[in-house]
Amino acid sequence: MLVNGKPGDSIGIRDRGLLYGDGIFRTMLAARGKAQGWPLHYHKLSDDCAALGIACPDIGSLTAELDSILRRQPDCVVKLIVTRGAGKRGYAPSGCAGSTRLWDTFPVPEYPAEWLTHGIRAHLCDLRLGHQPRLAGIKHLNRLENVLAAAESDAANAAEGLVMDAADNIIGGTRSNLFLVLHGELVTPDLSKCGVAGIQRDRVIGWAAENHVPLHVREVRLDDVMEAEELFVVSSVLKMWTIREFNRRSWSRFPVSEKIRLSLDGPGT
Amino acid sequence: MLVNGKPGDSIGIRDRGLLYGDGIFRTMLAARGKAQGWPLHYHKLSDDCAALGIACPDIGSLTAELDSILRRQPDCVVKLIVTRGAGKRGYAPSGCAGSTRLWDTFPVPEYPAEWLTHGIRAHLCDLRLGHQPRLAGIKHLNRLENVLAAAESDAANAAEGLVMDAADNIIGGTRSNLFLVLHGELVTPDLSKCGVAGIQRDRVIGWAAENHVPLHVREVRLDDVMEAEELFVVSSVLKMWTIREFNRRSWSRFPVSEKIRLSLDGPGT
Repeated sequence: MLVNGKPGDSIGIRDRGLLYGDGIFRTMLAARGKAQGWPLHYHKLSDDCAALGIACPDIGSLTAELDSILRRQPDCVVKLIVTRGAGKRGYAPSGCAGSTRLWDTFPVPEYPAEWLTHGIRAHLCDLRLGHQPRLAGIKHLNRLENVLAAAESDAANAAEGLVMDAADNIIGGTRSNLFLVLHGELVTPDLSKCGVAGIQRDRVIGWAAENHVPLHVREVRLDDVMEAEELFVVSSVLKMWTIREFNRRSWSRFPVSEKIRLSLDGPGT
Repeated sequence: MLVNGKPGDSIGIRDRGLLYGDGIFRTMLAARGKAQGWPLHYHKLSDDCAALGIACPDIGSLTAELDSILRRQPDCVVKLIVTRGAGKRGYAPSGCAGSTRLWDTFPVPEYPAEWLTHGIRAHLCDLRLGHQPRLAGIKHLNRLENVLAAAESDAANAAEGLVMDAADNIIGGTRSNLFLVLHGELVTPDLSKCGVAGIQRDRVIGWAAENHVPLHVREVRLDDVMEAEELFVVSSVLKMWTIREFNRRSWSRFPVSEKIRLSLDGPGT
């Protein structure tokens, strides 16, 4: 654990990350001392910080800190948090001395092997995501909706929960982005009103462009999901899980998904 | 500052209050060693914790901690945060060892005298609050909307900002609840889809019931606000500010507001 470049496992109780969730985070998988997709993660961190007006630490310092962590723990889940830091009392963000940056590591999760080989069971959550265009797509620290949704999918003993918004659009997983193979084309939910746009999602979108597979970022209805030939979720930690069971339908063949998985697992990671 | 009953000014970086904004807070004004409205604040804290499934510390322990703080600082703003504590990695709230409780104090803010004598200028914020019925009313730690709105009202050099939701309803101030005196009756926005229901709001609602003044909790449109005879905002820290200028209209007489102010400042505080 590093807090502002020094070993530590605590932050001040006046940090706005705690007080208001006023910060950004990234979660990455590290293998053999290398954080997969780090440049993409940094780029997204930088965009998210800019969207909230938080000073983003430069890539040089962060890369040096990341390297120092991964020298000791070459294989782990590594998490980075950047908050607006501490300021004067009150919501207004003016007068902050500078952002706070934190690194933490966790063991790589061991998921049941069949989730990878046969796909997962996904739960349709009751919780609906609210629309907030100013925060949509950003991986900020205001994550109570995800907490409530994850509690539901946990209670249903499902590997992941899929979440709709208040307008009955499917937005994605509680901690992942969703893709459909529909009529031979790729479809993924529009995230301009809610949801988090992860970098694995960007990589799938990039794969589609490179491979001339039509891909649509659009509103996705439950009917679309139920009609899809294949469904899969992606994230930087779980990588890709196909969905074998959702909302009383099952799927068993994932030819397009498996092709994309090969590419995501490839040297580009 | 107290962290779980002991002097301290930091919390662990794995606390879910930081990671996800997974917690509740209260901010109170203390005068002569007494936190105003503490039983009401505790009641609200307890309700909010229950809504998120967070174990609420018992009132005895919290009162003892509060007393110990106010013996040293009899006049201050005192803030209490209760988070879900630290658990295993991931959004799902299961497996948390126990909640974290924090106390912090701040000097009593000195507002310009004319805000109290003549009312404030309020700014109409561009930011619209998203609808999330599962979190509406709760004073949780997911406060980025308030941060963005407060940044706007600060930039406009206004004492407070008024915020609408995505459906063009006025919801309240960035850090306060709004009341209108409209056709001789009291009106305050419905907070079932967004906003925070503060205890000063409850006290005004109680005052109206005791004094047989009709009060309506309902959707409030900008037109209602512009037609109101009087406007005022309330919170536990700022108590009550009348609004003398908002959206190019001005107000100068506040007879109903002043009557309520006398009652709120009275021995019931």
